[in-house]
Amino acid sequence: VPRVLFNATSTHTQSPPPFDAVKDQYLLDNVVRYVGDEVAAVAADDDETAKGALEKIRVEYEVLPYVLTPEEAQEPEAPDLHQETEIKNIVGGVIRNGIGDIEVGFREAEVVVEETYRFPVQKQGQLETQAALAAFTEDGRYTVWCTTQTPHPTRKILSDIFGLPMSRLRVLNPPYVGGAFGVRIGLSAKAEPLALALCLLTGRPVKVMYDRKEDFTSSETRHGGTISVRLGLKRDGTFTALDVSARMNGGAYASWSADVNGAIGGRALSVYRVPNSRFAGYSVYTNTTLAGAARGFGAPQPTYSMEMTVDKAARALGMDPVEIRRKNIIRTGDAWPIPFPCLSTGLDQCLIQGAEAIGWGDRDGLREENEKGGRYRTGIGVGAGTHISSAFPFQTDYTGTQVTLTPDGTVQVVSGLMEMGTGIRTTLAQIAAEALGARFEDVWVKIGDTDSAYDIGGQASRSLYVGGMATRLAAEKVRDQVLMYAARKHEMDPDALSIRDSGIYEEDIFRLSLQEICQEADYDNVQFACLEHYKAPNALSWHAHFARVRVDTWLGTVEVEKLVAAHDMGRAINPQVVEGQIEGGAVMGLGYGLSEEVAYGPDGVQIQDSYHKYLMPTALDVGEIETILVEANEPSGPYGARGVGENSVAPVSPAVMSAVSHALGVTVTQLPLQPQRLLELLDTREE
Amino acid sequence: VPRVLFNATSTHTQSPPPFDAVKDQYLLDNVVRYVGDEVAAVAADDDETAKGALEKIRVEYEVLPYVLTPEEAQEPEAPDLHQETEIKNIVGGVIRNGIGDIEVGFREAEVVVEETYRFPVQKQGQLETQAALAAFTEDGRYTVWCTTQTPHPTRKILSDIFGLPMSRLRVLNPPYVGGAFGVRIGLSAKAEPLALALCLLTGRPVKVMYDRKEDFTSSETRHGGTISVRLGLKRDGTFTALDVSARMNGGAYASWSADVNGAIGGRALSVYRVPNSRFAGYSVYTNTTLAGAARGFGAPQPTYSMEMTVDKAARALGMDPVEIRRKNIIRTGDAWPIPFPCLSTGLDQCLIQGAEAIGWGDRDGLREENEKGGRYRTGIGVGAGTHISSAFPFQTDYTGTQVTLTPDGTVQVVSGLMEMGTGIRTTLAQIAAEALGARFEDVWVKIGDTDSAYDIGGQASRSLYVGGMATRLAAEKVRDQVLMYAARKHEMDPDALSIRDSGIYEEDIFRLSLQEICQEADYDNVQFACLEHYKAPNALSWHAHFARVRVDTWLGTVEVEKLVAAHDMGRAINPQVVEGQIEGGAVMGLGYGLSEEVAYGPDGVQIQDSYHKYLMPTALDVGEIETILVEANEPSGPYGARGVGENSVAPVSPAVMSAVSHALGVTVTQLPLQPQRLLELLDTREE
Repeated sequence: VPRVLFNATSTHTQSPPPFDAVKDQYLLDNVVRYVGDEVAAVAADDDETAKGALEKIRVEYEVLPYVLTPEEAQEPEAPDLHQETEIKNIVGGVIRNGIGDIEVGFREAEVVVEETYRFPVQKQGQLETQAALAAFTEDGRYTVWCTTQTPHPTRKILSDIFGLPMSRLRVLNPPYVGGAFGVRIGLSAKAEPLALALCLLTGRPVKVMYDRKEDFTSSETRHGGTISVRLGLKRDGTFTALDVSARMNGGAYASWSADVNGAIGGRALSVYRVPNSRFAGYSVYTNTTLAGAARGFGAPQPTYSMEMTVDKAARALGMDPVEIRRKNIIRTGDAWPIPFPCLSTGLDQCLIQGAEAIGWGDRDGLREENEKGGRYRTGIGVGAGTHISSAFPFQTDYTGTQVTLTPDGTVQVVSGLMEMGTGIRTTLAQIAAEALGARFEDVWVKIGDTDSAYDIGGQASRSLYVGGMATRLAAEKVRDQVLMYAARKHEMDPDALSIRDSGIYEEDIFRLSLQEICQEADYDNVQFACLEHYKAPNALSWHAHFARVRVDTWLGTVEVEKLVAAHDMGRAINPQVVEGQIEGGAVMGLGYGLSEEVAYGPDGVQIQDSYHKYLMPTALDVGEIETILVEANEPSGPYGARGVGENSVAPVSPAVMSAVSHALGVTVTQLPLQPQRLLELLDTREE
Repeated sequence: VPRVLFNATSTHTQSPPPFDAVKDQYLLDNVVRYVGDEVAAVAADDDETAKGALEKIRVEYEVLPYVLTPEEAQEPEAPDLHQETEIKNIVGGVIRNGIGDIEVGFREAEVVVEETYRFPVQKQGQLETQAALAAFTEDGRYTVWCTTQTPHPTRKILSDIFGLPMSRLRVLNPPYVGGAFGVRIGLSAKAEPLALALCLLTGRPVKVMYDRKEDFTSSETRHGGTISVRLGLKRDGTFTALDVSARMNGGAYASWSADVNGAIGGRALSVYRVPNSRFAGYSVYTNTTLAGAARGFGAPQPTYSMEMTVDKAARALGMDPVEIRRKNIIRTGDAWPIPFPCLSTGLDQCLIQGAEAIGWGDRDGLREENEKGGRYRTGIGVGAGTHISSAFPFQTDYTGTQVTLTPDGTVQVVSGLMEMGTGIRTTLAQIAAEALGARFEDVWVKIGDTDSAYDIGGQASRSLYVGGMATRLAAEKVRDQVLMYAARKHEMDPDALSIRDSGIYEEDIFRLSLQEICQEADYDNVQFACLEHYKAPNALSWHAHFARVRVDTWLGTVEVEKLVAAHDMGRAINPQVVEGQIEGGAVMGLGYGLSEEVAYGPDGVQIQDSYHKYLMPTALDVGEIETILVEANEPSGPYGARGVGENSVAPVSPAVMSAVSHALGVTVTQLPLQPQRLLELLDTREE
């Protein structure tokens, strides 16, 4: 087993400072840093033999001092989890952001509200566990089939670990990856390097598949931790100062624990126009499962913290929660601490249309109803938020698409992206068809394979925004190649030509089909094809959720009767896909708010290590979800589109807890709001 | 089973007139045109079940009139094998070529020699039989793994037969194809469409593999037939007129039977400078196994015919056979009936160096020795020839190569070509390394898969000449991208930069490695890559073989003690590969001259249907082969290279029979010269 330090999840060598990945893991180390840390791997011809061999391995563990929370890890007597940290147990340093002068801002403020929020460890819980199959294939390369979201970066990580040239290593997905949600950025836990190491050692194909418990305990989680928010306002509700600090539990290895604070700061400071803002955040090593990327990366925690604080400010000023938001949200052209401009935002429309759809006007009536007492209380709440559309400029972010017209006029698209259930294969085909003028059914898309131009993979809600633009540009160039050839060949005016429905038209007259022109070109030794590389910009998408909840004050349960998810993703290239993404994310958000939490016993053993113990919402737990698509048309995106894949996770819990607050008059500062915690809250209030 | 006419071997829709493929085959027809014509296919879970099922099929055959030779097929009462022929049983018409005025040429001649030669049907005899596996794969396409030499054209043929869009059909080779020799241009017999048809009917993966007898009887052969040559000369040996006519046995289906006459005419008229030349040739349908492409396509027959005739002329004039050739061979700039210019030729050097190596000066001494009589006679002979380097302009001929630098500075090359044992994967890697400046071991080449730019495949000795140039051009563009980027990034003079051994040098100072610059580019969101399409020109390669034979006049056997194969392939990019090609082809040429023949019984049943009956040379049958590489440096080829893959088949039999003639004083007008035929010749001579 090679002894090379790596970062299994952050796509390392990839990120410019300060987000350069911290490399602190070995493949199989002799120091165990959390319960679940891999110490050995066994390969056998069948499961039974492997399990028998595993049982014969005796490991003698020397129990060293350990810490399970950031608080413990920062105590002077705490053990150093990794010697190389600059500040003891802080992963990669403190991330800072902000604009203006926070002191000035708070001096200008007439009202200041503040609060600290606590967040659970959430597990991505994808259906297919981490898996990889490595083999030396007849094409003279090592080939690794695996569940990664990022074939190219994963190849890079494997290349570094094993010293194999990237050109002799192929990483590809099976055609369908059974969910990912961030936990498969970079390696799929250690499935890929373990499979490849065993393959290299045995010279045979090796498949590694985590069982559910291994997947729970040994693959990354969403960061738990605390965020404190201090918000200064004028009496008219104008925000003057915002101070946000975050301390996250990074678990035993770095993963994305430095980067996540960049995201937390970005999400916290970019929804509202605040002339003076400041963010400082860091993650702390602890002896728990490493925290990494999870759908909505760095958004649920600050979004919840900000929105609860804005609600608190509205209450303090006696303002309507929607109105205080509409007054302060970022508009295009506003100064903000984000390293790319806001070119479009439909957030105001999300708030207006969402409020209308939830029946915001019923709020006062409901409050009166609730004040009468009784077992059930109903409330309506709101939560707004934002998310990125690419990894730029926090990581390198580029992609390439090759569009080729085959000699029968049908279209092959090869993209370095991958498909994990987001429908990107369909949407890329739509874009290629639209840009080229081909029929949708004539387009075939190949993805999920390093036999393609470099791409950083399915992450950062970027696939459509980045890969879609590369596909559009490549397809447009192919269209232009076709039209120039056709104009010359058939003596037509190139400016009068267009392609639609796989046919070439001169003005409105059909002249010949794509199939015919491609056959003619084939006779002429010409193929229409383009490989287009594309360096991504970035753009924020916008969203406001509204929840109507019914709280059972006896049982402590919260039923979300209706969730309105209003999203501005620039343009919905495929509305059905967009709605699917929004609904799926919203359900993850419901779990985050109400039920999902991974906790550790005093011995550091993960308690929730299976679907039976870790409670994700089932179909029966989900009420009505109404999606509203607002299309503000983003100038930097393909046909106006921005990202949408991760957006709907974060705004659910603030909308729901805003509604709970409305129903019960309590402020929820710790997630998830499981029944016992709700009952405790009610007890506290009643004391 | 779809009822669509196709041409299983010629890559159809591909060829401009007059070589547009004749489509005259159905997948499983109810008319059987030769013994071996497929009538049914059975799929089963295992071989035994399939064979059992086959035995249960009872086919009732009605025996129709049939013809086995061109002579019979052209009789007035002969059956029409295909109704659609313009001239009865002539495949696709008569092919003509020539320059000048043949009547004038023969009037100017002082001596005229003529002869008619008969050629056997030769079988390619590749080690791996025809095979294909078709499956609907998880990527949403039909995928066909098969032994074809031409993945892209094969996809086109399958797309036509089954009405499947090319973008939903992938054709790829296994990494190693077990020999091909022309018999796998287009389909591998009918393995691909049978596998795909059964896959479509059953919805399951289906593998079809011909057994050896099926492979012999039902896949294409080299055309047998007759060629007549009439050559007019001045007394000083200057050629004034050349008239060549050919009649080939096409077998039951068109395949390449029209095109082969184009090749025969081209090879016959392009070795010597003859101001007045004429060629007419055609193929005739007969009820025998279809004739198609075989290594050296259209060359062995005319090369033998021409060279024997030139020898005869030399004898008539009392000239030295080498001298009469050197006097008349084509030089650059000469007029010829070939539709592209002769930019380079090293044929004169081949003749000079070959004569030297064989010991041409011993000839007179040997003749005197032979005239003394005795069981063994020794002779020395010569045969010259030429071959193409691409299919242009007889077929479309273009290709595309993608060269990509991965972020670790190693190189991926993707070409639409395939590897059938010619070493092209190695040679392309050499060219990419040379053009880019990368280390050879840093280059990985992917081929043999339609997931690539279009390419017409491994045929026409084109892979290096065409694909090598595309690779060179693409790699040079990638090199230029790297150097421009490096110059800007590191403030260096771009004109002073070069790449060698995967390092960037400014003048002679090493500055940084390809790996370093690629990592920097990755940080900057830049990938160096180029997809380059290339439309091929063509160029003739040149060769002269010299043989020294020892004839056993009692047993009738001919031992080729030494064969000197002098070849001008422009430039030997990889001399070991070139020598391997020359030696392999020479052995095929030995078989063609001395032992290999497929004959048909009076009932049309192929007699030689196995390796035991069809006698290919074994290692023990091959004497010394000395290869001489002459590098005339072809301006149109990559680094001066032309084609070499097929070149050495044709000149063997004239060199050997020229030597037999020298030894025995007989003229051999029919191949192969099996012992019985040699003894008959000796009897004839002695009468």
